[in-house]
Amino acid sequence: MTEALPSHLLEPLDIIEQELVSRIDDAGAGGELSDGLRDAMRYAVLDGGKRLRPLLVWHVAAAAGGDPQTALPAAAATEFIHAFSLVHDDLPALDDDDLRRGKPTLHVHAGEAMAILAGDALLSLAYDTLARGVQEPALSRDLIADLAAGCAGMITGQVYDTLPDADPRETGLTQLERIHRHKTGALIRAACRMGARFGNTAAIEHADRFGDAIGLMFQAVDDLLDVEQHADHAGKRTGKDADAGKLTYPGLIGVDRTRGEIERLRGEAHTAADRIGPVSESLHELTDYLASRDR
Amino acid sequence: MTEALPSHLLEPLDIIEQELVSRIDDAGAGGELSDGLRDAMRYAVLDGGKRLRPLLVWHVAAAAGGDPQTALPAAAATEFIHAFSLVHDDLPALDDDDLRRGKPTLHVHAGEAMAILAGDALLSLAYDTLARGVQEPALSRDLIADLAAGCAGMITGQVYDTLPDADPRETGLTQLERIHRHKTGALIRAACRMGARFGNTAAIEHADRFGDAIGLMFQAVDDLLDVEQHADHAGKRTGKDADAGKLTYPGLIGVDRTRGEIERLRGEAHTAADRIGPVSESLHELTDYLASRDR
Repeated sequence: MTEALPSHLLEPLDIIEQELVSRIDDAGAGGELSDGLRDAMRYAVLDGGKRLRPLLVWHVAAAAGGDPQTALPAAAATEFIHAFSLVHDDLPALDDDDLRRGKPTLHVHAGEAMAILAGDALLSLAYDTLARGVQEPALSRDLIADLAAGCAGMITGQVYDTLPDADPRETGLTQLERIHRHKTGALIRAACRMGARFGNTAAIEHADRFGDAIGLMFQAVDDLLDVEQHADHAGKRTGKDADAGKLTYPGLIGVDRTRGEIERLRGEAHTAADRIGPVSESLHELTDYLASRDR
Repeated sequence: MTEALPSHLLEPLDIIEQELVSRIDDAGAGGELSDGLRDAMRYAVLDGGKRLRPLLVWHVAAAAGGDPQTALPAAAATEFIHAFSLVHDDLPALDDDDLRRGKPTLHVHAGEAMAILAGDALLSLAYDTLARGVQEPALSRDLIADLAAGCAGMITGQVYDTLPDADPRETGLTQLERIHRHKTGALIRAACRMGARFGNTAAIEHADRFGDAIGLMFQAVDDLLDVEQHADHAGKRTGKDADAGKLTYPGLIGVDRTRGEIERLRGEAHTAADRIGPVSESLHELTDYLASRDR
């Protein structure tokens, strides 16, 4: 059932990694950053993440007829925002996670004070990267506005998730979509919009819809994997999220309807991808992979 | 000894306050911000601060021959960065302060999770304000780069202050200046540079020096006030910072040499102010006030 991610989609990973490294090395070249702070930023970013958001910037840029090489600073900026959000979300006052991808989280590794400050520095570096790394001023400014909208939405999603304020008039499913659309979806949408800005600007609205569909789909698949892996390994159907009392797709509508929802969103993503541009094959492949991934 | 701040220097305060309010109200107008998050951001910003950084943007812009009205978004952006830094610095893992200007700090008022997230949202809003609030794209981008340098320096200053890494080859005074230049000075310098960008760009380097001098002077005066007010009220010469084992100017070089240092920096600021532009009277007045303020 699982489709592998075609390896050509991962070709930009090396160059993305180089961009991340050099942007952190170059940050505060005027003495603004201390060595300890820079080390903490490196620890948070260079940790073997999947780089989904930078890959989206890259492949959407290419699909929209742009040169993805010029989009590299934008790709890095989305990953800095993602990394900052993981560092802050892992803090004891929020999700209180000790491990991430098998490594101690930054606050365990370097202390809570450093984790808060390094997260702040990464957030700021994302915007600095767009201001100093993108040649055309008007493009730079539009990218910054996109990223700021994505970042604000993502932070609100964390508020919804950590400090729930359920509206009694809202169904569970509407509430779940509201959380996911913000927490995961907003930055994924921003990455897609940002990529499209390097190509045909008419593609931006379609990139936005593509990002909305795969963002929600990504989370529905996550919820499903949580249930299925828990069922495989622990012999029960309720997963970690369900145990924690969190809303999930399978918890609300069952496994079968969750699968149906994933298929619906996959279809939406394919339709939007076709409209982004004529060379959108990589976006179709990415969509199919994200719909059927097994981890 | 204390010179009052001439009231005409405070005339922009109302319009700056309006700008802060409307930028927060307008933030995430596409549904990106939840009401609770926006309330927390308001609480952190609209709290009767002195608005030193926005006033610097305004008066430097005017001195450099620019229209300070057009600099309002930049003025607001510096205050958002200042407000975010206070919220995060007050957190239990950092300075652990319960009160600020007589009000409970945000984490006491709204919880630690909300304080971390609202600080993040204010940091991001600062850049969004520059991206969407400044008409000319190239100017917008330069302002963002200035602010990012100031923000990175400020965060590093908090690292130096909270997580000291004293270099044994460094004298106490050098270490103290390194902390102050980053923690207070970097954002003040950025505010001055940003103001100058609205006028004659040749003024930027002088605005930078002006900001460096008043930033350091501001902190030396703070240190002196800490000693003197403690001596007045508690009948002893050591102040709160000295009690806490922090480096201070009077603790390192004594009260008299601290006064001399303040005079030296005041002179540097006046020289730089003259070079910013022909109508720099307000910057001279501001300098004299900051050198001799009594709180």
